[in-house]
Amino acid sequence: MMMKSMQRGQLKANDRQCSAVLNANSTRSTSIVNAINKLVPATHASLSMKNSSRRLQITTQAVAEPVIQSPGTAHSSGAGTRVMIIGGDGYCGWATALHLSARGYEVCIVDNLCRRGYDLQLGLDTLTPIASIHDRIQKWAEVSGKHIQLEVGDICDFEFFGEAFRSFNPDAVVHFGEQRSAPYSMIDRQRAVYTQTNNVVGTINVLYAIKEIKPDCHLVKLGTMGEYGTPNIDIEEGFITITHNGRTDTLPYPKQGGSFYHLSKVHDSHNIHFATKAWKIAATDLNQGVVYGVRTEETTADPLLINRYDYDGIFGTALNRFVVQAAVGHPLTVYGKGGQTRGFLDIRDTVRCIQIAIDNPANMGEMRVFNQFTEQFSVNQLADIVSKEGKKLGLDVQVVSVPNPRVELEEHYYNAKCTKLQALGLKPHLLQDSMVDSLLEFAIQYKDRVKHELIKPAVDWRKSGTKVSTMGAAVAK
Amino acid sequence: MMMKSMQRGQLKANDRQCSAVLNANSTRSTSIVNAINKLVPATHASLSMKNSSRRLQITTQAVAEPVIQSPGTAHSSGAGTRVMIIGGDGYCGWATALHLSARGYEVCIVDNLCRRGYDLQLGLDTLTPIASIHDRIQKWAEVSGKHIQLEVGDICDFEFFGEAFRSFNPDAVVHFGEQRSAPYSMIDRQRAVYTQTNNVVGTINVLYAIKEIKPDCHLVKLGTMGEYGTPNIDIEEGFITITHNGRTDTLPYPKQGGSFYHLSKVHDSHNIHFATKAWKIAATDLNQGVVYGVRTEETTADPLLINRYDYDGIFGTALNRFVVQAAVGHPLTVYGKGGQTRGFLDIRDTVRCIQIAIDNPANMGEMRVFNQFTEQFSVNQLADIVSKEGKKLGLDVQVVSVPNPRVELEEHYYNAKCTKLQALGLKPHLLQDSMVDSLLEFAIQYKDRVKHELIKPAVDWRKSGTKVSTMGAAVAK
Repeated sequence: MMMKSMQRGQLKANDRQCSAVLNANSTRSTSIVNAINKLVPATHASLSMKNSSRRLQITTQAVAEPVIQSPGTAHSSGAGTRVMIIGGDGYCGWATALHLSARGYEVCIVDNLCRRGYDLQLGLDTLTPIASIHDRIQKWAEVSGKHIQLEVGDICDFEFFGEAFRSFNPDAVVHFGEQRSAPYSMIDRQRAVYTQTNNVVGTINVLYAIKEIKPDCHLVKLGTMGEYGTPNIDIEEGFITITHNGRTDTLPYPKQGGSFYHLSKVHDSHNIHFATKAWKIAATDLNQGVVYGVRTEETTADPLLINRYDYDGIFGTALNRFVVQAAVGHPLTVYGKGGQTRGFLDIRDTVRCIQIAIDNPANMGEMRVFNQFTEQFSVNQLADIVSKEGKKLGLDVQVVSVPNPRVELEEHYYNAKCTKLQALGLKPHLLQDSMVDSLLEFAIQYKDRVKHELIKPAVDWRKSGTKVSTMGAAVAK
Repeated sequence: MMMKSMQRGQLKANDRQCSAVLNANSTRSTSIVNAINKLVPATHASLSMKNSSRRLQITTQAVAEPVIQSPGTAHSSGAGTRVMIIGGDGYCGWATALHLSARGYEVCIVDNLCRRGYDLQLGLDTLTPIASIHDRIQKWAEVSGKHIQLEVGDICDFEFFGEAFRSFNPDAVVHFGEQRSAPYSMIDRQRAVYTQTNNVVGTINVLYAIKEIKPDCHLVKLGTMGEYGTPNIDIEEGFITITHNGRTDTLPYPKQGGSFYHLSKVHDSHNIHFATKAWKIAATDLNQGVVYGVRTEETTADPLLINRYDYDGIFGTALNRFVVQAAVGHPLTVYGKGGQTRGFLDIRDTVRCIQIAIDNPANMGEMRVFNQFTEQFSVNQLADIVSKEGKKLGLDVQVVSVPNPRVELEEHYYNAKCTKLQALGLKPHLLQDSMVDSLLEFAIQYKDRVKHELIKPAVDWRKSGTKVSTMGAAVAK
């Protein structure tokens, strides 16, 4: 049994930091951001804090008997490696933080909790009831005996971030800390501006922190396969060798992002490439595919460790959304012809890919690019798989085509390479029927929490406007 | 003779606009920007305004006898075309505004005067004594009988810009309104963030204004040849046809910007490309080379119309800087080996290129890219030309190699295409000896205004830091 008695190590109020965080939205133009920043601390405070400080450093002194076993020798490569995880309260970030912590890496989560703010702002909610980041971290300490450090603040605010970076002194920084929804970025002009400003400035700040404070810190940055768009030639991993008029060079792969969100990651990639060359720092850009699944070895260890699961039209990704639709008897909503093909991966592979990138760092002066997915599917193929598996569980699964809210090709060539991570040891979890089975069962378990009105596509690329969409309007269309 | 009596048409105070402009820096994180915004209105006010309004609309009712003749039939294509020129108080923008106004285009300048703010902030100054934008516009009305409308404000502030765009209702918008110095963007982290935020957000706002307010307005956007970097293959105009593993596609030309400034233009190009496809709007991206020269037909019509001429290490471009160095007996400062090769053009061709792009708009849904330069030179070739011409004028011109403050290849292949603008009618002014002659004579005329301490390279790419450089530090190194 685990012991309940916890000591909260430090609850450090730092007025200067606090004021820095409060002023973090000076980088943004929008009332939306103000709204987020007002909502988040309020929530945050009510959930877990007795104290007005927003830079909270928790170094829990747990005396628990761990239920997660110490890592075996196969997992012990992390011992002593200090990893800062920006966006460690999000879907991929939280799973990664626990995965690494369990394996002996010293983990510090940096997060401004804006992902929870978007939900509050738009009236969305995760399928799963997630605990506050503070409760999550305390529970993890009880369950595993491992300490995760927490810095609550905005990486766009360098006064906060520089200090957090300097004090943790990471060997690697994993950067998930960006607004990551394409539909969110297309709601209106303010959110397009917010998405690009937030993502680009955050990454520039991370690059400067590495350069100035710890030049041998390895940046592991989450990009997206969506940076490439859908070219009519094979997609290589970051770079392509071009022979043209009798001469040859290896150049960055041409990018065609399909939303202001995807474009923000394109911008990041260009900025990172420049910084690695100019400053001789090391970076790995992980162009991740669409992630599905929710459970990892660590997040299943206790209900308080459960990960978020988004099924709405703004943050829900294709397969996860279809599974919830099937569970609640909503037709699977295929956008347009459904021939859109993308790379996919299981969240259990996301966490392994990050670990592999950390354990095999890029060279100084190098931006290395890995395509981080394991299989390609078209939307129609996904709908067929979910349909077939749903019927086995007695669900009556319908599939409907809805007008495509995005501007994208619905039938196209798609052949993307993804060999580099597997060459470094990734053993993919493939999307077999059993995986869909267990995801469906998971969704059925939580189906009473589903808000049906959030399921349909909410944001039309062609209607993104200059008027600020009200909080509810984007999902109420 | 021209009549001196002028009527200032409207001096419209608009409290809401005024407050919007005052709050424009809410998009930026930096105290630098605050400093600019504080400096600019002050200057502005002392130079020309009796009134606290910062949104100033001048529609001068001139009754002057023009010294600039009405455009002949060869120039009359502009009649009735409404052109908004963002950044119309800058080096290229001012020359373009007059060129178009002289030829019958209805011109509206939008400018937040930040270029003058950078000079105030860093202690820089143009070689030429330039008048305030208000005096410039009044003088132009006297000289030409043409009215130029002025909107002073920040395009990053959509409350201001949307209203300015809506009220002028342009047929074309020429967007020069970006922070355009690579060294400035590399001074420190804050200026890197400012440059990317300012440029990217401004362009997003322009795209949304076109989409929402006047979808058939043609965007003519100034990019830079520096977006391409120095690849080892020929540089095409914006797109390249790639055959790879037996398949072929025409894709955006791979980009490798060499500073946070150049990268901001790379980001703009990607955003514009997406917006033209998603929203079916029309854009021309002009990847301009290094501009030299200062006099155009219009700016020479009166001393108050003179254009700015930057020779300092931050805003001065290669040839213009060498010419001033020669004029004052300072050695020509070649960075490193001097094999850096770039595309160049005369400012008289800049203004023609813009006119050609306006007169031959892109198709709806198209982002068309023109490489806007006329000749290639290496830095060593420029130094040789200036040296030779300087000696003819009795100047003792020395050439020295200084450590390269930039991170760039100093010997490389470079072959960039520039046929599209010439196919549409551009007749280049080539950099012949006579041009360098007249530039040298011009520089000699103003040489008493040269501050020698501003001449040397001021910003080292490798030393760009997280501490804010004081106003003077960047140029005092």
